[in-house]
This record gives sequence, C-alpha cells and structure tokens, in this order.
Amino acid sequence: MNPQKAVLVIGAGDATGGAIARRFAREGYIACVTRRSADKLQPLVEQIRADGGQAHGFGSDARQEEAMASLVAHIERDIAPIEVAVFNIGANVRFPITETTARVYFKVWEMACFAGFLMGREAAKVMVPRGRGTILFTGATASLRGRDGFAAFAGAKHGLRALAQSMARELWPKGIHVAHPIIDGAIDTDFIQSNFPERYATKAQDGIVNPERIAELYWQIHQQPRDAWTHETELRPWMEPW
Amino acid sequence: MNPQKAVLVIGAGDATGGAIARRFAREGYIACVTRRSADKLQPLVEQIRADGGQAHGFGSDARQEEAMASLVAHIERDIAPIEVAVFNIGANVRFPITETTARVYFKVWEMACFAGFLMGREAAKVMVPRGRGTILFTGATASLRGRDGFAAFAGAKHGLRALAQSMARELWPKGIHVAHPIIDGAIDTDFIQSNFPERYATKAQDGIVNPERIAELYWQIHQQPRDAWTHETELRPWMEPW
Amino acid sequence: MNPQKAVLVIGAGDATGGAIARRFAREGYIACVTRRSADKLQPLVEQIRADGGQAHGFGSDARQEEAMASLVAHIERDIAPIEVAVFNIGANVRFPITETTARVYFKVWEMACFAGFLMGREAAKVMVPRGRGTILFTGATASLRGRDGFAAFAGAKHGLRALAQSMARELWPKGIHVAHPIIDGAIDTDFIQSNFPERYATKAQDGIVNPERIAELYWQIHQQPRDAWTHETELRPWMEPW
Amino acid sequence: MNPQKAVLVIGAGDATGGAIARRFAREGYIACVTRRSADKLQPLVEQIRADGGQAHGFGSDARQEEAMASLVAHIERDIAPIEVAVFNIGANVRFPITETTARVYFKVWEMACFAGFLMGREAAKVMVPRGRGTILFTGATASLRGRDGFAAFAGAKHGLRALAQSMARELWPKGIHVAHPIIDGAIDTDFIQSNFPERYATKAQDGIVNPERIAELYWQIHQQPRDAWTHETELRPWMEPW
Repeated sequence: MNPQKAVLVIGAGDATGGAIARRFAREGYIACVTRRSADKLQPLVEQIRADGGQAHGFGSDARQEEAMASLVAHIERDIAPIEVAVFNIGANVRFPITETTARVYFKVWEMACFAGFLMGREAAKVMVPRGRGTILFTGATASLRGRDGFAAFAGAKHGLRALAQSMARELWPKGIHVAHPIIDGAIDTDFIQSNFPERYATKAQDGIVNPERIAELYWQIHQQPRDAWTHETELRPWMEPW
Repeated sequence: MNPQKAVLVIGAGDATGGAIARRFAREGYIACVTRRSADKLQPLVEQIRADGGQAHGFGSDARQEEAMASLVAHIERDIAPIEVAVFNIGANVRFPITETTARVYFKVWEMACFAGFLMGREAAKVMVPRGRGTILFTGATASLRGRDGFAAFAGAKHGLRALAQSMARELWPKGIHVAHPIIDGAIDTDFIQSNFPERYATKAQDGIVNPERIAELYWQIHQQPRDAWTHETELRPWMEPW
Repeated sequence: MNPQKAVLVIGAGDATGGAIARRFAREGYIACVTRRSADKLQPLVEQIRADGGQAHGFGSDARQEEAMASLVAHIERDIAPIEVAVFNIGANVRFPITETTARVYFKVWEMACFAGFLMGREAAKVMVPRGRGTILFTGATASLRGRDGFAAFAGAKHGLRALAQSMARELWPKGIHVAHPIIDGAIDTDFIQSNFPERYATKAQDGIVNPERIAELYWQIHQQPRDAWTHETELRPWMEPW
Repeated sequence: MNPQKAVLVIGAGDATGGAIARRFAREGYIACVTRRSADKLQPLVEQIRADGGQAHGFGSDARQEEAMASLVAHIERDIAPIEVAVFNIGANVRFPITETTARVYFKVWEMACFAGFLMGREAAKVMVPRGRGTILFTGATASLRGRDGFAAFAGAKHGLRALAQSMARELWPKGIHVAHPIIDGAIDTDFIQSNFPERYATKAQDGIVNPERIAELYWQIHQQPRDAWTHETELRPWMEPW
C-alpha cells in the first residue's frame, strides 16, 4: 500500500492502543499515537521503529478541542493523511450512585465520550472531502448495559456508542467506515492485573483478551470492501459469562 | 393517601412536565416544579392550585450541583418528603457531525444527561434511607438509536438511559422504583408545532402524543406494587413508523 | 361500555390467563377462555359468573388451525365481537442442547409460537375490517435472551416476539393495537411452586409476580388512546436480578 | 493445517453457502456441502476440486432428523471430523398477516430454524467430546426486527438467533465457538437479481453484499483464538439504510 497514510490512535497508553498502532504500522501505516504524557509513549514509538515501522508520539489532552484540532492538522500537513482514526480511551470506575461525585461523573464522560466526539469530528472533517477513511471507537460491556455502580462509566460508553452509530449513519454514505467493536470482557492490561488479580489469573486458561486480537479485528474491519462493512461487533473470552 | 408527599418535576416548562405535575397533584401530591425561569412556571402553579392541588414553582438551573442539592434539601425540610422525582429535560438538536460544535455537544449532554444524574443522585440520597420512592427519567427515540445528525442528542439520551438502568439495578433492591419510559414519537408541544408543522398536522388523526398520556403512564408506573415493576416501556402514536 | 364485546384468552389454564379474563370480565367484557381440557376451565368460568360477569369456557387445541378458526368464528357469530385477544401459552422447558429432542423442540414451538400465530391471524381477520381491537402476546425473559439450556423455549418466545412486532408494524396503522408485554421473572403459579420452591419462597418478600398485576397492565394497555400506544413493556419483581 | 478436517455447509445452493465452502476448502478443509437436490451441487463440487480442494456433495433434506443425523455420522466416519458446521438456509417470504397460511408459517420455520436446530445439535454431539469446533448460523435483518409482512420469516430468524445464543452460552465453556453473523442487506444472489432488480442494480456502486465477504468473515471468526471470540457481528453495504 501507499506508505503515505497515517493511523491516529487516541489513547495509546494501554495495551490495546499500542497493539493497534503496531498492527497498522506493520502494514506500512505511519502510527501517530497519543496519550496525555508524551514520555510514556516513547517505548511504543521505539518498538514500532525497531520493528521497521514509522511512528510519532504526541503528548496531547484529548479532551481539549484546540489540542485535538491542532494535532489532526499537524498530522495531515506534516506527516500523512489520516486514513484510520481510533478512539481508545476508557475510564472504568465503579461507585454507588450516592457516592458518585459530579466531578467523577463529568470526568469520566469527558474522557471516554467527549474526547471521542472531538476525535470523531476532526477525523470526519478531513476524511469527508476525500470520501474515504475508517473511524473506530472501542466499546465495552458498559456500552450495552448499565449495571449497579456504573452510572458514570456506562453513561459515557453509551454516549460513545450513540456517537458511533450516528456518525455511521451519516458518514457511511459518504464513504467513511465508522465502526464500534465491543470488548465484552477483561483485557490483558496492567489495570486488570493490579485491580482484579483473580480475574487476571484466568489468563492461563485464555480467560482475558489478548490486545493483539483487538488489533487484528480492527485491521480486518479496516480491510473490508464497502459492500460489506461491519458497524458493531463483539469480542469476549470463551469462558466469560454474558 | 398521605398528602404530605411531594413530587419533584425537573423541567416542567413544556407540556409533558406540566401534565405530570398536574396528574400527581390531582392525587394529593404537592407538586414541586422547576425550570430555569421561575416566572414561566406561574401559570402551571396557578392551574394546579385552581384545581384544588398544591404546587410550588422553583426557578433553578438543573445543571448546577449546588442548586439541585439545595432544592432537594429545601423541599424535604420545608414542604414534604419527595416520594416521586421526574427528570424531563430534553434538548433535541440536529446537526451534521462536522458542524456540531463542542459547545453544543457539551450543552446538550449537560442539560439532558448530567442534570438527570444530579437529580437522580439527590433523589436517591433522600429515598434510600426511607427504602421507598419512585424516580422516572423520560426517554426518547434517541435513547435507542443514534441517527444521522443526532450525535449530541442521542449521546445525551443514551447516557440518561445508562443512568436509569444502572440506578435501577442498584436501587430496586433498596426499594426505589427507577423507571425509564421512552416516548418514541412527537409530543404535542409548542416546539413540534413551530418546528415540524407537517408533523403537527397529524394531530387531527392522533399522530402526536398527548402529554396527558405520558402523565397517566407515569402515574400507573408509580402505583405498581413492588412484585411487578416496569423499568423500560414505550409510547408511540398508532401511525408512527418505527 | 357496550357489554357486547368479548375478550378471548388463549391459554387460560394458569394463573395469568385466568386473572386477565377476570379483569376484563369485571369491566363488562364477555370472557371467552380456552385451554386444552374444558373441564379444567369450569372453576374460572364459575368464578367470573359468581362475580357478576359473563364467561364461556372452550376446550380447544390452540395448535390446530381449524379449531382456532372455528372458535373465533363461533364467538363472533354467537357471542360478541372479539375486541381483545390474548395469547398466553408458555412452555418453559430446559434441556442441554444435545438432549433436546426434535419432538420437544417442535412441541415447544408449536405451543408457544405457532398457536400464537394462529390466534393472531384469526383475530386480525375479524379486527381489520372493524379497524379496531387489541391483540396481546405474553412475553418472558426468554423473549429477550437465549440462555444455556433454553434453545427450544427461547426459540419459541423469540418467534412470538417477532410475530408481535411484525403484526404491530402492519396492523397499528389499521387501528389494531398489538402489544408484547414481557414478564421478566417468576409468576405466582403452581408450576413455580412445585418446581422452584426456593424461588417461590420469595413470595413473602414480593419476589414473584402476582398475576393480578399482569392483568392490570393488560387492561391499562387496552385502555390507551391511539395517540400513545405501548408495544413492548416489561414487569419484574423489585428483587429480580437482570 | 491437518487436512483431515471437514467443514459442513447446510444450504450450499445459493451464492453464500458456496462461497463459504470454497473459502474453507482453499485452506485445506474437506467441504461437505448439502442442498435438497444433489444434482445442483455438482458445479460447486467440481469447482472446488478444480481449485485443488476436496469436496463432497450431499442431496439431503435438512428438515429431516434422521437425514441430518445420518449425514453427520457418515461424514465423521468416512470422511473427516467436522471442525466447522455452517447453517445457511434462508426462506425470505413476505405476506400480510391475514394472508400468511399456516403451511407457509410452518414451512419457513422448518427450513430456516428447525433445520438449524437439527444441524446445531448434531454438530454439538460430535464436537463436545472433542472440546473444539465452530458452529455458524447465518442471520439476516429479520433476525433483529419483525417488519410489516415478515411474521413468518422474522419468526424463523428470531428463533435461529435464540438457538445460536443459547448454544453459545452453553457450549463456549466447552470449547465450541458458536457464532451468529448477521447479513443486514441484500446479497448478490439470483434471488435478488430476479426479484429485486432495482436493488440489484446498486451492485455497480457496491450496494449489495458479495458472498466472498461473508465467506471471509466466517473464516476470520473460525480463526479467532478462544480468548477473543465473536458471537454476534454484522455486515451491510455502505449505502444500506438501517
């Protein structure tokens, strides 16, 4: 393929975002990865380069409209057209409703939904004139159900799902493939290892999702010709109750 | 029933909120109704009183945490325990994604979702110790589907649905009946009359929802004994495509 | 109301069907109730009459096309126009997939879905020319989800849901109110008492649904003016996990 | 891979089933394809063989329990273990409810749902002892929604979805990957070309699904390691309204 294409991954700090960036870089895409602190992106950027790929790391606050607009403009102008944009920020918190502060409720939405809107809109702005591109929003169990203690997280994830669906209905006919894969299970991350050690222990039986699978799914979705596009799909471990 | 019970209706400015307040006032509940401008509440308050009911109007910004907390505290202390709390603020806007400003996206969420969280949480705080109460969140078509142009509105409404569902799963076992009726069609309001005159013209064939029906449904839900509670239900006109 | 209206309840053997028949009979409807064995209907018929209502019991196999057509024709000709038709036959069985016989799979579908089609179609035939009427199909948890062991029961209930939805979309614009209330929890029946005694014991805490609630909901749905019809709604006990 | 594995495709008469058989044959699977008339399978079998693959065609009535059991037993005994089983029979008919005969309602269910149950159960019987295998049921728009005129077809497809979901919840923990891809749009088949020529004309703009895409998706699903399995996913053309 033409090497002059970029994949933008917002929220490349955790295992999933990094795996996605590496997967697309392996196919020749220039990986443009962000998280709040640029320092923490260095290992990922170096790994991609060591594997023969191209990568740029950006410390950027995805909740800031100006920052998102500048980032997209910079990539488009100085690096390559953004062919794929991936939004991968989560904010998994759990509180009883009476102990959910307004600050938490807002912050979770700002990170996991509002920032997704900013990315989605900025990506749409550059993709629509080209009539091509893929925009991927990562969903979770909380995208589908509101459970006890998840008012904030499920609220944000439901909002992101509505964004993905609204954008798909508007942008598919303009040639932009908007998709919403839902990861309905624990992912192999430091967060799960630290906070849910019993859950993490099921890794030996393949009970948690390897981020490489998510990256592979995203690559497959991006490869789909336009006569057969996926909008919503799901991944969960074989032993996950659902 | 004991007349010393209050129904709180957040967003009693439009036809629906007013109808709900009147319906519960007719059964002896003290209607505590809010909208941003207190002046505009006077006709509703006077009508309820003229019908022999009790009502209090409050100019209050539902998006302000302090204002919501003060309002609930004031009603509980000076008027009556809040037996029923209804969140009825919508924010139906439609824009292409690339023309949806961050300000609009945020404002719609703040009004139609965040304010619902504030009301739901404050209501929960006073109801949980009593082990009783009903909390109703008004849903719309956009609660179920994200359509072309509705990223902001559907995002807020999906978030509100997640809130209602999360709260129901947490609070039903504590005796609080949280419900989420979805009005999947146009309601007989000034907004529809002004903005969708052709739609409004179907009123002659019962093509738009009379707010009294919504009020009746809310009353029925509130009356349900706890062995048979409704969480989600829907209303739409007989001639509505869906 | 005009006493010359009939309510047809297919599957009036269990608690729910009987409660529905009594509820409508109380409002002046002539209750036409069926189950396979007419003998077992006598107590219900006698109770309705003792309460001052009118009732007719029919031993009829709901899975037989001719029997259903004859029954509807007989009621329409000799008793009263069918204003309301209720399908209330379930067939809750649970088997591992490899132990589900073709006979069981077929029988469950025939009872809980095919018979519903026969009733729905025959009711539609007499209601459409009148441009009025209500058709109610009773749903269950298995209408929404297929769970381990429920291939047969969920298959039938999903089919019934599709029937209700297809008929609603076709017949609402013709003035027929088709609805699909879902009872998502155990109902207070002999079946539950015998087979799930621990579940039944939660009755003391209102943990199982009183059939009178279902009857009340069906009556409320039937009373809805056509500007605000419910298609799908749900009932479950306050302590039910979902 | 080990060439001694079979893929069973029930309903390989149309474009989709054939494409799936070819896709798996290309990877070394022995394609065992069925439709009611064996004669019509010859071109497919010959094509697979011409491409260097292995194939066997079976004229078999998928609605007959004995026939399905014999077929599976024969393949297992004489050809190879069934590693993948695909159910691909549809029965897309549309009638007003009052014109839907009991015969049509039954036949559609028997073909599109009951036969799926027979295949699913027989496949489960041989796969469960091995703790491995993939079972795929092809869904359609009617799997998700019941629309005007689709009581029979949606009823069967909803039933098939319930089967897939019930089997997934039971068999995933036993190592069997049960999945339900939904094709939410017209597929490039003779049926669409003959019956919906205007729809077919959108093929020039990629408005109908190429069966090769479905085959590719099925292959991808089968390839998923068990830490990240898909149960439900969807494909539709970019210009499909939904």
